[in-house]
Formats: sequence, C-alpha cells, structure tokens
Amino acid sequence: MGEVKPVEPWREIAARVSNWGRWGSTDERGTLNFITPEVVAHAATLARTGKVFATAIPFDETGPQDGRIRTNPMRYMRETGHSDQGYKGVFRYADDVVFMALQSATQWDALAHVHYDGKLFNGFSSETIDEKGAQYGAITNLNPGVVSRGVLIDVARHHKVDWLEKGYAISPEELDEVVANQKTVIRSGDVILIRTGWRNRYTHDFDKAAFKSGEPGLSVRCLDWLAKHEVAAVGSDNYAVEVVPPEYSDQDLPFHLIAIRDMGMPLAEILDLESLAADCEEDGIYEFLFVGAPLPFTRGVGSPVNPIAIK
Amino acid sequence: MGEVKPVEPWREIAARVSNWGRWGSTDERGTLNFITPEVVAHAATLARTGKVFATAIPFDETGPQDGRIRTNPMRYMRETGHSDQGYKGVFRYADDVVFMALQSATQWDALAHVHYDGKLFNGFSSETIDEKGAQYGAITNLNPGVVSRGVLIDVARHHKVDWLEKGYAISPEELDEVVANQKTVIRSGDVILIRTGWRNRYTHDFDKAAFKSGEPGLSVRCLDWLAKHEVAAVGSDNYAVEVVPPEYSDQDLPFHLIAIRDMGMPLAEILDLESLAADCEEDGIYEFLFVGAPLPFTRGVGSPVNPIAIK
Amino acid sequence: MGEVKPVEPWREIAARVSNWGRWGSTDERGTLNFITPEVVAHAATLARTGKVFATAIPFDETGPQDGRIRTNPMRYMRETGHSDQGYKGVFRYADDVVFMALQSATQWDALAHVHYDGKLFNGFSSETIDEKGAQYGAITNLNPGVVSRGVLIDVARHHKVDWLEKGYAISPEELDEVVANQKTVIRSGDVILIRTGWRNRYTHDFDKAAFKSGEPGLSVRCLDWLAKHEVAAVGSDNYAVEVVPPEYSDQDLPFHLIAIRDMGMPLAEILDLESLAADCEEDGIYEFLFVGAPLPFTRGVGSPVNPIAIK
Amino acid sequence: MGEVKPVEPWREIAARVSNWGRWGSTDERGTLNFITPEVVAHAATLARTGKVFATAIPFDETGPQDGRIRTNPMRYMRETGHSDQGYKGVFRYADDVVFMALQSATQWDALAHVHYDGKLFNGFSSETIDEKGAQYGAITNLNPGVVSRGVLIDVARHHKVDWLEKGYAISPEELDEVVANQKTVIRSGDVILIRTGWRNRYTHDFDKAAFKSGEPGLSVRCLDWLAKHEVAAVGSDNYAVEVVPPEYSDQDLPFHLIAIRDMGMPLAEILDLESLAADCEEDGIYEFLFVGAPLPFTRGVGSPVNPIAIK
Repeated sequence: MGEVKPVEPWREIAARVSNWGRWGSTDERGTLNFITPEVVAHAATLARTGKVFATAIPFDETGPQDGRIRTNPMRYMRETGHSDQGYKGVFRYADDVVFMALQSATQWDALAHVHYDGKLFNGFSSETIDEKGAQYGAITNLNPGVVSRGVLIDVARHHKVDWLEKGYAISPEELDEVVANQKTVIRSGDVILIRTGWRNRYTHDFDKAAFKSGEPGLSVRCLDWLAKHEVAAVGSDNYAVEVVPPEYSDQDLPFHLIAIRDMGMPLAEILDLESLAADCEEDGIYEFLFVGAPLPFTRGVGSPVNPIAIK
Repeated sequence: MGEVKPVEPWREIAARVSNWGRWGSTDERGTLNFITPEVVAHAATLARTGKVFATAIPFDETGPQDGRIRTNPMRYMRETGHSDQGYKGVFRYADDVVFMALQSATQWDALAHVHYDGKLFNGFSSETIDEKGAQYGAITNLNPGVVSRGVLIDVARHHKVDWLEKGYAISPEELDEVVANQKTVIRSGDVILIRTGWRNRYTHDFDKAAFKSGEPGLSVRCLDWLAKHEVAAVGSDNYAVEVVPPEYSDQDLPFHLIAIRDMGMPLAEILDLESLAADCEEDGIYEFLFVGAPLPFTRGVGSPVNPIAIK
Repeated sequence: MGEVKPVEPWREIAARVSNWGRWGSTDERGTLNFITPEVVAHAATLARTGKVFATAIPFDETGPQDGRIRTNPMRYMRETGHSDQGYKGVFRYADDVVFMALQSATQWDALAHVHYDGKLFNGFSSETIDEKGAQYGAITNLNPGVVSRGVLIDVARHHKVDWLEKGYAISPEELDEVVANQKTVIRSGDVILIRTGWRNRYTHDFDKAAFKSGEPGLSVRCLDWLAKHEVAAVGSDNYAVEVVPPEYSDQDLPFHLIAIRDMGMPLAEILDLESLAADCEEDGIYEFLFVGAPLPFTRGVGSPVNPIAIK
Repeated sequence: MGEVKPVEPWREIAARVSNWGRWGSTDERGTLNFITPEVVAHAATLARTGKVFATAIPFDETGPQDGRIRTNPMRYMRETGHSDQGYKGVFRYADDVVFMALQSATQWDALAHVHYDGKLFNGFSSETIDEKGAQYGAITNLNPGVVSRGVLIDVARHHKVDWLEKGYAISPEELDEVVANQKTVIRSGDVILIRTGWRNRYTHDFDKAAFKSGEPGLSVRCLDWLAKHEVAAVGSDNYAVEVVPPEYSDQDLPFHLIAIRDMGMPLAEILDLESLAADCEEDGIYEFLFVGAPLPFTRGVGSPVNPIAIK
C-alpha cells in the first residue's frame, strides 16, 4: 500500500489506454462520452436527502498560487455606489472585475490543455493552438456541463491521516481497497474525486511554496484502472491529480499527458473536498450527483469551476 | 396581456415584500432560504431522462457588452506549448488568462450588487462595501450553489413570437397564464427562468446597442407574485430581468432594488434559454433540476455562471 | 493642396524607401539610427525657455477606443487606505492596477507591430512572433528612449481649420509648404509631429465611432519625403498617422506597412498636440527637444507613452 | 558614515518640512513647484554630448514583485498576425495587452499614494480617495512631466561597494560628502537619483524575497536636507527610496509619510541606474537633463515610467 511498484514505460500505458478514434475522428469530448443520459438519470437518483456541497476553494488571495506561474484571482471593485452613478432615482450598484488565469483556482483542464509529439487528443495537431486559443479540444466541449454520478475516494481518510505526504503515489490496488471499504462500486461514466488531504494540508498553514513543491496523487498505474472502469473525469484536492515528483526521472506530469491527451479525460484540480468528505464519512455514502459546469470560454483551454455534489 | 396597468409607488411594493429580518438579523442568503433539503431532494426527482442543458452564453467577444459600462470577457493565451517550457520530457501545455467584469456574461447578481437609502438587504449598511468588496451579501453566500427545482416560463413562446419587444412589461396575470398553459405549478423554493426571447433577438443580428437599449421583462407588479410563490431566484435571457425602460419615470431599475435589496433575491442574467426552451416545448415538461454554482469570489458582488438544467 | 494625385503601386514605394540591411542585418532600430549623439545634443539646444508640453491624452474612459478592437485603459483601485493595512504606526496607502491594450491610448508602435509577406523590418521572419511576443523589433529597441529634435507640422492650422476632414490625404508638397510657412527646416534624425486636428475633432463631441471611422493623415506619397529627410519617427494626433480610407482600394494601411516594416520607422499615435500647437503658433517656433520614452515591455509590440516637448 | 544617529520623533520632522499651503491651498504639485522654466532651461544645457540613458527596469517577469502585494507586469498577445485579420490586402499586425499594478515596476508615486491622520498633501481629506481613485494629488499632477536638472548621488560607488546592505541608513552628512566628492552642487528644483546598488544586488541573483525583505536607503534625517536644497523629486534604485527596516520601531515608512504627504514630493522607485552610473563614473559628470513623464492616468495614484537622463 503506497509501495512504489516498478512502472512500465509511460508510452506503453499511453498506447494501451488511448481513446483516439474511439468516438470518431472528430470527437472532442473524450471520456465524457461515457456519460449517457441513462448515466445522468441514474446519478440524479443519488440526490436523496438534498444535501448540497460546493467544492471550489475561495477565489481570493488565500489561494495556493505563488505568482511564479500563475497568480490567485485578482478582483477589483469597478463601482461601489457610494456616489451618484447617473441613474434616475435612488438606484445604486456595486460591480467588480477580475483578472485571473483560468486555471488559478478550482478548475477544469480542457483536452487542449496538454500536448506532446505535436498532437492533442484524438490526433488534432497542436499547431491548431494559437494566440487565440484552441481550435480543438477547447473547454466549450465540456458543455452542457459535466453532470454524472460522482464518487469520492477518500484515500487520506482510509489511511487515517490528515493528508498523504508529498510524493506518495496512490496505486490502483489502493483505489480498489478504498472503494471496497467505502462499500461502493465504480460505474461507467463516473466522475471520481480523489481526496489526498493536500488541500487540508495547505489550509493548515497556507504555505504556497509547500503546496506547489510536490504532492501526493495518482500513480500512472491508475490510468489502466480508470480506463477499465470507464471513468469520465477525475478531480482531486491537489493541483495536478497525479503524484509529484513523477514516477519517471525523465518525464514530468506523465499522468497528465496520458489522461488528457491519450484518453481524452478532463481533470478537475484544486478542489476543496473537506465538507463533502466529512459528510460521506458520517453517513457512509460516497456517491452523489456531480455537477461541474465550466464557463464556456470560446477556444479556452481551462475554466474556473465550482463543482457541486448533491446527496 | 402586456397592457400596462397603473403601478403603485414602488416603495409600497418594497415595504410589502420585504424579507428583512425574516431569517434573522444576520441572514445574508435571503430567498435562498426557501430552498430546503426537501426542496432539493424533490428537484432531483425531476431529472428523469438525463437530458442536460447549459444556459451560459459563449464567453467571448460575441457577447452583448459594448464597452461603455462593461466589456465582454477578454481571454488571452499565456502559453501555447509551441516551444520548450522547461519540463522534463515531452510535456507541453497551453494556458490562458481572462480579464472580465464578473457581470459581463451570464451571471449571478449577489445581494450586495444593489443598494439604496444607504442600505443593503437585511439592513446592512452600504458603507460596508469598499474597494475590497462587500462585507455582507457577497456572492459567496450563494454557496453551496443554487440547487433547486427550476421552472421555465416561456413568455415569448406563449405569445408565439421570436421575442417580445423592448419595453414590454410582463404582468403577474400573464405569468399565471403561461404557467397554467404549461401545465405546471410554482412551488416554494423554485428558481424561475423567464424567457423573453431577448437573447434570441440579439443572436439574430448581434447588435450590442440594440440589446442594451431597453428590453422586455418583468413588471414590478410581478414582485408580489414572486413573494407569494416563495420563489428563491429568478433568471432571464435579458440583461436585467425587469422591463426597461422602467414603469416609473423617476426611478431606474425598480425591480432590481426591490428584488435584491428588499426581498433578498439573487438574479441571474444574460441566460441563453433557447435549447432548454426548445426541449420544453417538445416534451411539454417545463420543470427540471436547476444547478447554478457561482464562483466563490470572496467579497465579490457578482459571479459568472453556467446554470445547468437537468431533465 | 489636398488634391489626390495618382499614387504609384505601394510596393514600388516600399522597395524604393526600404532600409533593410542599411544598418546591418541584425539591426532592430531602423530609422532611430538617424538619431546620433550630435542630433541629440543639438536638439537639447532647442529647449531655450523651459516651456514643457505633454502630448499624451488622458488615460481614462474618455479615450477614443470603442471596445471593438481595443478598450480604453481600465484602472481600478487595489487599496485606498481607508482601513488598516497592517503597517506599524499610521502609514496608509492607495494603490491601483490597470488592464489595457498597450496601444489603446497615446502610444508607440514597435517595428514588430506590422508585417506582410511573412517578414518584419530588416527581413526578420514574422514567425518569430508568438504568444510570448516579438523576438525581433520589440518595443525595447526604442530604448534609451526616442530623444531628438522634434518639429511640429501643423497642417490644420496652415489651412485655418479646426480639423482636416476624414479621408484628407496630406501630400509631401503640402508638408513642404507648411514647413516653409513655419520658417523651419527638416533635419536628419527629426521626429515629426503632424497635427491634423483629428484629436481636436474628437474632444469636440467625444464620438468614438466618428474618431475611428476614418481620418485625415499622411499620403503614402509622403514616405519618399520622410526618407529623403531622414526622419527618425513620425507622430500624429490621429490613430494611424496615415489617411484613412487608404489611397488604394485593395490595400489597407499601406503607410503602416511601408513606414514600419520597410523603412523601420516607429510611429506615435493618438497624440494630443493642442497645447503644443497653440504655443508654437504664439511664438512662431515649431522646433523643440522631443523625448518619447517607451515602457520597456520585454518582447512587447507597442507601448503607452507620454511624449514630452521642451521649448 | 552610515552610523545611525539618534533620530528625533518623525512628527517633528514632518511639521518642520511641511509644505502645506506654501503654494496655495489648492496646490496639488508640491515640490514640483520648484521646477521653474528657468530651471528647465538650465537643465537642458546639461545635455551636452547627446548621451541618453533610460532607467526603467525591464517590464517583465524578471521584475522584483513576488506576487504577495503586487505582481510584475503581465503582458499577453492579443494578435500575432499569423492568420487573416480581415484587412484588405496583405496587412497583418501584432498587438498586446497588459495587466499590471501601476507601481509594479519603475514608477512614480503620486502625492495621493500615501496618507495618515486622514489627510493627504496640502490638507486634502483622504476620504477623497474612493474606488474611482484620487480627486486630489493624482498622478496627472505630474504633467507636463517631471523635466528638470537631474543629479545622480552614487552612494554605493562612494563606498566602493557593489551595493549597500539592507538596513543601511544614508545620512545627510553622507549625501554632502558624496556630492562634494562628485564635484557637484544641489540646486533648487533638482531631481535627485540615489544609487544604493540595491538593483544591482537584485540582478545578481534575482531573489525577489531578498529584494523586498528590506533595503538600504535614505534616513529620515535626509528630509531636512531635501527641504533645504529645495529638491523637487527623489528617485532610487530600491523599492521605497528610504531605509527599511525603518528608523522607528513603531512607524513603518516614515520617509514616505513625510516626503509625499507633508512635503508634497513625488518619489520614483525601482530605477535601474547602472548604465547611467557607469557613465557618470567614467566622465565624472553627475548632472544631466532628467525627463520623467508619467502616463496621465486620470485619478491614478501612481504610474509606470521610464525616466530618461540626457548628458
């Protein structure tokens, strides 16, 4: 458990789990294709008692961005309404603006977010990304929103720790163990939320450098598991879903490469799963209706999101 | 129908429908309090066949903002991944940033968005809004997301027009008529979506000036109707929910003042209801599970949103 | 005067006035090379009485941008200092941020701003521009600032009009006439400021659409004149220096193409020359020390600037 | 030399050097009033050989901002011109935008930048600063640009060090010593540039945290010296002109408070004085024509600037 097994070359995994062509040569939705209307209808039945959980972190300067690659969202007031605004009568309004990287807080990665060997998911050329954004695999392909059954896999709780340590690689065997222990099963089209406790670790001291210096996360060996279970999307409370440092000495972010570019699977990052996890622990129910609606930025390669779990 | 009845002074309506103190002196959620877990659980049962509809407009330069007050979201690429980015191996990524007014596209108005006579909803002083944002009634109070039963009231379709005309005031009698015709009822905690066709009019020619020059929308007389039905929130495919020019010669945006500041009701604006409306017309079912999750901008007074309807 | 003479094909002018290779194959400064230390030293002698004129327009929402291509600078307060900011003692500060297109107000065009046939000035490939900016011809090449003799050529005043009309093409013969009338001469290394009155026209009614709908400006026939006089840079009180609509039915902005890309001449646009012009008219002296210091945005293709004239 | 003398209470210094009312009750220019046309005309005579030096740092991510209070300027391409842009003919253009704090790189502090006891310079209420900016003491009051005699006081070179250490307080006696050693004198209206070497220290290792952790700079005791010499403005190669940590245990940034708010003196910060200093050392001439032109952001409290020295 947590023991690092030898990993095979990542390109072999990539070849095996690739979904290129699976839904046609023009497909830009990848594993979201697993979410059929039947999957959605079933997922809605999991909203039994009407408890609702939001999993976005606060969009403010307490976020984990340290400014080296991205900054936290920067919001400013355009109007407060403290002086006359030119309206007839007593109407006054406040209004604000934001400058932010689309992936600076809780976020969806679009399929066009990552590429290698000159190709995006489904073989689209990475040259189709230019200063205007992505022609293929843009965030708008996540519309009409990622609505499906969600399953929380609380790995940190399983190990009875507040958080897993940086560099801890979660194995597929461990996922099976946690899922079994949680008395749930994984179904085709599920959105899997992995709780590593890394967000919990961050809010312990708000050390931005520590948050970004590495993280516990999924092993590349989990990619076969995700493929086998026909998982539609994965989210986590860390910043990259996968374990960092990576399991290869010569390849950064291999899980990203394979999940997004070969499998066509959107990733949700920097989630706050604490309230949801506390409730799941309490009632023993780890499944729910998941709604993660991206903002449809035309040609965007990511989007902030506030994923909602309804139990 | 559409005939303008004499309207009483707006302050009389405001006094009658005010919810100040109704949920305690510290309440910042207003009419969202109508959404109980039971309401949510029932709403989820409306997601019967798994059809999902997103109602955000495209977040790009085709939006209706003309730059005089707000601009459309401006997104730029920070990275395309066409040259080395310093990662080990073949990892390349694309990334983008946005500058936008939080209310420039499909959006939630927070309760702190509007004030008059120096007061926000529930009597909080408008002085509590400063350059850092709102201390009370901020958008974060819409968390954990507005999840409830949604009802589309398709007024334009009822009148068999592509869109209602600018200045057309939708009356409460008309709402009753449309609802009855749609064979639905309004329940406590509902989120009401009013289709005026104004978005449809806009995409007809993308005339930004025309979109903002006035609009069809709810009469202030509908506020009693909303109060009576204990509606939790209202959205519309126009920019202000309410009819413009207003029904008073000396008061702009009276519906905003009363709905947001006196009733404590969040408004959703600039929705695209076309796909949802087409489906409702086809299957005759105008109710659904509504999920409208704001981005939790700390102290923000609005948020972009992609409201989701699940049938 | 103002009569439109037949213009030869623009590519013939381009070939004739090209400075590619003139200052070596790696040159990125173009006509700024005309500004030698001797030119600067002489220019400084023109600052005789110590009158100083700033020629930037106000950087605010009254600017001419209508939001279709660019918006006016959008500035927001980050701090006002009205509440405790965490400093010891009584220190309080105000601070602001801006979002702006670098060419939205008074500005320098870098040589990398314009290209055609896949080439920038001096033959650099336009492919060297990517999402990070320009590798060659960036705005930083205007450092250590454009400091030289400045000459105002007040064409509007010469014609005794408040402003020249849209589409009015200023001819080289006319430039000679105005210069002679102003009793000045043009010297190698000069920065020429052309007053068309178009800014004056704009502040008359602040009609953004009118400002951008076309403009009086230099004829492409002036390019030979600029080359002959070894002018270092040209600025104007319109938005593109050159006449719009252009003198060719099949080529937009031909003056830009030739001046920037073939000659290597930076252009300054959207100047406010009113105060300077009034003073020149009064004392009859149209020459001065000109200082136009760009902000050195690494790889930037333009920069806001507040050009200073010292008499 | 560098020895810390006991400092009197800062409010006593403030009272003594205050310029409130000196140029009338409506004055918003403060010590810039020392710059008369005669001062400018004389300053221009210092531009003898035509050498020009720009003192702005590169406006890019190599700047010293670490994102905690401000970020370095963030520039993005809006257009590259690699695909059709809708113009007739072969015209293609590149264009960029920036998001930045106005004081994130080389900058002017406006008089409205700092306040205490509810007052700005000349007694204006700090309440006149709101979310729209400053009504009094805004950056536009630095127009038509700060043009005057500049004098470099190279304290680091005087001590034959690459840079002074953090916390080193430059004394007025030391200023006299350096000035005498440089064989120059200070005149009314001068702009003084203090070289501490702190920029040099920064570019040695680009350690943002080290740059902001404290700095060598002027002692509050220099304020009398600046007043006596009728200095118009002071700039430095550090981030706050003054020594940090401050000379008082209970008051941060006392020099800022007195210089800006009591004397009405604009400060220029984060200059790169290395090239200028090298030249001054070489030719032994430490005076020049100084031109520091702010961008006239209406109601702004600061401005990026590229100050120019002409010798």
